Amino acid sequence: MSTAVATRGLEGVVATQSGICWIDGEAGVLSYRGIDIHELAAKSNFEETTYLLWFGVLPSEDQLSDFKLQLSQARSLDWRIPEFLRSLPKKTTPMEALRTVVSLLAVYDVDDTDSSHDANVRKAIRLTSQIAMVVAMFDRVRKGKDIIEADKSLSHAANFLWMLTGEKPIGEATRAFDVALILHADHELNASTFTARVIAATLADIHSAVTGAIGALKGPLHGGANEAVMRMLFDIERSGADPVEYVRNMLANKIKISGFGHRVYKTEDPRATHLRRMSEELGRASGNAKWYEMSRKIELFITKEKKLNANVDFYSASTYTTLGIDIDLFTPIFAVSRISGWAAHVIEQHDNNRLIRPRAEYIGPEYPAPYVPIEDR
Amino acid sequence: MSTAVATRGLEGVVATQSGICWIDGEAGVLSYRGIDIHELAAKSNFEETTYLLWFGVLPSEDQLSDFKLQLSQARSLDWRIPEFLRSLPKKTTPMEALRTVVSLLAVYDVDDTDSSHDANVRKAIRLTSQIAMVVAMFDRVRKGKDIIEADKSLSHAANFLWMLTGEKPIGEATRAFDVALILHADHELNASTFTARVIAATLADIHSAVTGAIGALKGPLHGGANEAVMRMLFDIERSGADPVEYVRNMLANKIKISGFGHRVYKTEDPRATHLRRMSEELGRASGNAKWYEMSRKIELFITKEKKLNANVDFYSASTYTTLGIDIDLFTPIFAVSRISGWAAHVIEQHDNNRLIRPRAEYIGPEYPAPYVPIEDR
Repeated sequence: MSTAVATRGLEGVVATQSGICWIDGEAGVLSYRGIDIHELAAKSNFEETTYLLWFGVLPSEDQLSDFKLQLSQARSLDWRIPEFLRSLPKKTTPMEALRTVVSLLAVYDVDDTDSSHDANVRKAIRLTSQIAMVVAMFDRVRKGKDIIEADKSLSHAANFLWMLTGEKPIGEATRAFDVALILHADHELNASTFTARVIAATLADIHSAVTGAIGALKGPLHGGANEAVMRMLFDIERSGADPVEYVRNMLANKIKISGFGHRVYKTEDPRATHLRRMSEELGRASGNAKWYEMSRKIELFITKEKKLNANVDFYSASTYTTLGIDIDLFTPIFAVSRISGWAAHVIEQHDNNRLIRPRAEYIGPEYPAPYVPIEDR
Repeated sequence: MSTAVATRGLEGVVATQSGICWIDGEAGVLSYRGIDIHELAAKSNFEETTYLLWFGVLPSEDQLSDFKLQLSQARSLDWRIPEFLRSLPKKTTPMEALRTVVSLLAVYDVDDTDSSHDANVRKAIRLTSQIAMVVAMFDRVRKGKDIIEADKSLSHAANFLWMLTGEKPIGEATRAFDVALILHADHELNASTFTARVIAATLADIHSAVTGAIGALKGPLHGGANEAVMRMLFDIERSGADPVEYVRNMLANKIKISGFGHRVYKTEDPRATHLRRMSEELGRASGNAKWYEMSRKIELFITKEKKLNANVDFYSASTYTTLGIDIDLFTPIFAVSRISGWAAHVIEQHDNNRLIRPRAEYIGPEYPAPYVPIEDR
């Protein structure tokens, strides 16, 4: 093998070609299939954005209504899935439940045994609808609440909130959640998407790839930042502290403040712009702007003090909490959205596949090291 | 981002440093912690090799007996695991069952909630013992046979064969299986191990990493080759064809013959040397050498005709079949062994972590592509 020095974390290494997502970290640009995220956040919806990610173009009216129909008709789960969720012990976390159920869904999936392009799209449609249902259902089961039947007349975003809360959501809530789904749908080769592609590149099925991606998303360096933001906001409220003083104290004690800075973006994360606005609007509409206001004070301080910008996680925390969503569902909700990107990347990988198999720079004992007999060790 | 051209499949790209496995593809060398695989295959056992992979050195007698004790004491599964295996539909494949159960094992694991070095080692011990049990148990459950209780007095290899067959294995069988476990224990950054490291690098837990690794191993470009070899051997027997004529015909029809060549090894895969010998010895000892003999004829022909060497998969097919193991357990058995390598890499990754996040070379529509209103599409 080459004795090239390892690029730790593959930072800046180009691992594959992809036509899905274009990011310009210097200019703060995120785009799906070339369309700016600001356009999509303002004008699109999750179903249309998912179509764009999978098929590469915006759908016609007929294509979109057909696609929405397929997604809503896929809102069905084998009866053994809720039974399985009920069987899980109390300490099961939502991400453990989701990872396990997505793996289990493969065995209850209809007989699409190949990984052709069309079969992958059909499986992706089912997974997209099912993941949202499983997250909502698990939360109800663990709280001892009745499971809410899917409403096939609702949009993807509205149906999720309906199945989670048992109440038909107000328009502002649906729109805020829909935009959050659009913003989180894809982000090029982030760790979970890269995981999905490495798995898919062995020609493993999409359920295997998505199961692995959920495992990667579960890691606190990937999916956990908005949970940490919200725990901080809750702690500030509980302690009655001034938000700026609280954060200044964290800085003084060298405690990491989640929700700021990004490996890729050198300017403001373009997703933060929309989440800030939604956090504010939703706070106003629901008569509870305290999380937005607390967040805003902290952001202004950190931006000034540390020259760090808010990222996607900072305002999703207050947005989700204002929507009435529990902290430990933030990462599963990330999966509810990111399944569209994971699926797009698995489909693209399978369409033009090559096994992903890098090398390691060996730093262990020099070869050949002796096999010393056990009595001489 | 850089506009560097993507190295498809990351071939030859150095992704990380590692002190676990050294491969010299040109010279046909495989070594664990610097010790040649030929030494380990001749003198070691799976437990000792696992200790070497995890701790970096060969154990003393006391360390090895303590380690064996920990592994055998970890031969226990929550009662809901066999119950869950029984609940799976008939069409469930062993790899689907294993992937789902490993994810599920996380929720029944004792409360090692952190991912410290010591907690990772404890979890790795449990996973190593449990994965072997789950593979054996699933096979008995699907065949309507009684589950066999683990025998804590047996070695890891012997206990697996015992739980699979319900018969105490002969010495040759145990030794052959033990050597197969040693040979498959690690292979640097193969696709499943790389998957495990990408997942672990988000600081996700070892269960997430191993679940994803099993998904990658499930892909036919990674784990399926010895299954394909054995299907070919069965078909040759069924059809009564001459093995060499059968294979010559495959070549003429441009049908891929599994079990030959390797992306890394340019000479003979050093693991094939041992599997060839074991296939032969086990065939003699069991009075059934037909699979070895058929394999050998094919190997001699392909090596001469195509200048391709047998790889690890070619003789593991006849070895496992002679041991009485079903074809669709070959890949799960790969996991029974490779868990030792996956765990070594997850522990190493967590000990000195950096998020693994490469970039993609964008080949999609030029930015900014217009968001065309739906009525104008």
